[in-house]
This record gives sequence, structure tokens and C-alpha cells, in this order.
Amino acid sequence: MAKKDDKIKYNYAFLFYDVKENRVNRVFKVCKKYLSHFQKSVFRGEITPSSMMSLKKDLKKVIDENEDFICIIKLMNGNVFGEEVMGVGNDNGESLVL
Amino acid sequence: MAKKDDKIKYNYAFLFYDVKENRVNRVFKVCKKYLSHFQKSVFRGEITPSSMMSLKKDLKKVIDENEDFICIIKLMNGNVFGEEVMGVGNDNGESLVL
Repeated sequence: MAKKDDKIKYNYAFLFYDVKENRVNRVFKVCKKYLSHFQKSVFRGEITPSSMMSLKKDLKKVIDENEDFICIIKLMNGNVFGEEVMGVGNDNGESLVL
Repeated sequence: MAKKDDKIKYNYAFLFYDVKENRVNRVFKVCKKYLSHFQKSVFRGEITPSSMMSLKKDLKKVIDENEDFICIIKLMNGNVFGEEVMGVGNDNGESLVL
């Protein structure tokens, strides 16, 4: 994967988290600083490679790597994907968390 | 988004679910039929547009759209993204679910 990363410039990302409840707020706030809240535990948005590094650094500070899980999909831009949402994804859930 | 979908052929997908515990097994099995289990509640893999339609149809049968949430990111192929995993994502968790 590292090799591929060298060749492609990623400027857009999806981020999904699955973290213990007592850390959700902190993780949410870090993600919100760099990306837009999309649905439930999903964030997305344009992000430069250097901001991506800061995001990961900030996340490392708030998660417990033995219990929490974060997955980031990096894309070249916001035009290379399609999306489907099923279920309660229609309410953004933000009000519940902040 | 529909317009964009008409132009681009998507043959790869990421799928993330956030469903009530009593439906996790059923959702997991449906996803497993069409995609590969990646990490925790994340699946991914090559999938044709027609299989994608079947996947969504099958998911609709097992989820409660008022309580569950499924997000599918469709990509042209498996070479257009980079990925980062933080935390417990390193164990695939499959043994816990099946």
C-alpha cells in the first residue's frame, strides 16, 4: 500500500470509527476539525495529505488502540465514488453527539 | 448522485454497517456473500453493478431501516484508493461473529 500511496495524491477521505462510548465525543470532535460529518460514525471531505497526518496524530491521542477502531479510505478527489445509504443514515445524528 | 452513477462504472465497494446487535449476524452473512470481510463492521471487494443490486435487496430484508444504518462507497476499481487503519482493526473479528 505504501508504494501506491507514493504514486497517487489523495485529497479526499472517508473516515469510519467504532470506538468505546466514553471516547466517542473526543473522536467526533477531532474528526469534525478536519472533515465533515456525513452520517452516524462516518465522516468525509477534502483533506490535504498534511492535514491527514495531523488528523491521524490527533486521533492517536484520543483513541485506545486496543479497544477502538478507525478506518480511513483515501481517494484522489470527491468525484471518483458513488454512495448508497440505507436505513437511519438520513438523520445526521450530530445533535446526539455534540 | 444519480447522474454521476450513470457515467461511471463502479465495480468495487466498501460497505460499513452500524446495526442493532441482534441483527449483526444476519447482516454479516449477507455482506459476506457479496464482499470480503475487511475489518470489524467493514466489508469491501469487487462487485458488479448487478450484484450490488442483489446485495442491497438482500440487506433490505434483514435490516430495520428505522434503527440500522448501512453506508456503501462505490469505486471504479480496487486501485483508486489508499487506506489507513488505526486501532484494533488488525484482528478481523470474524471469529467473534460467525
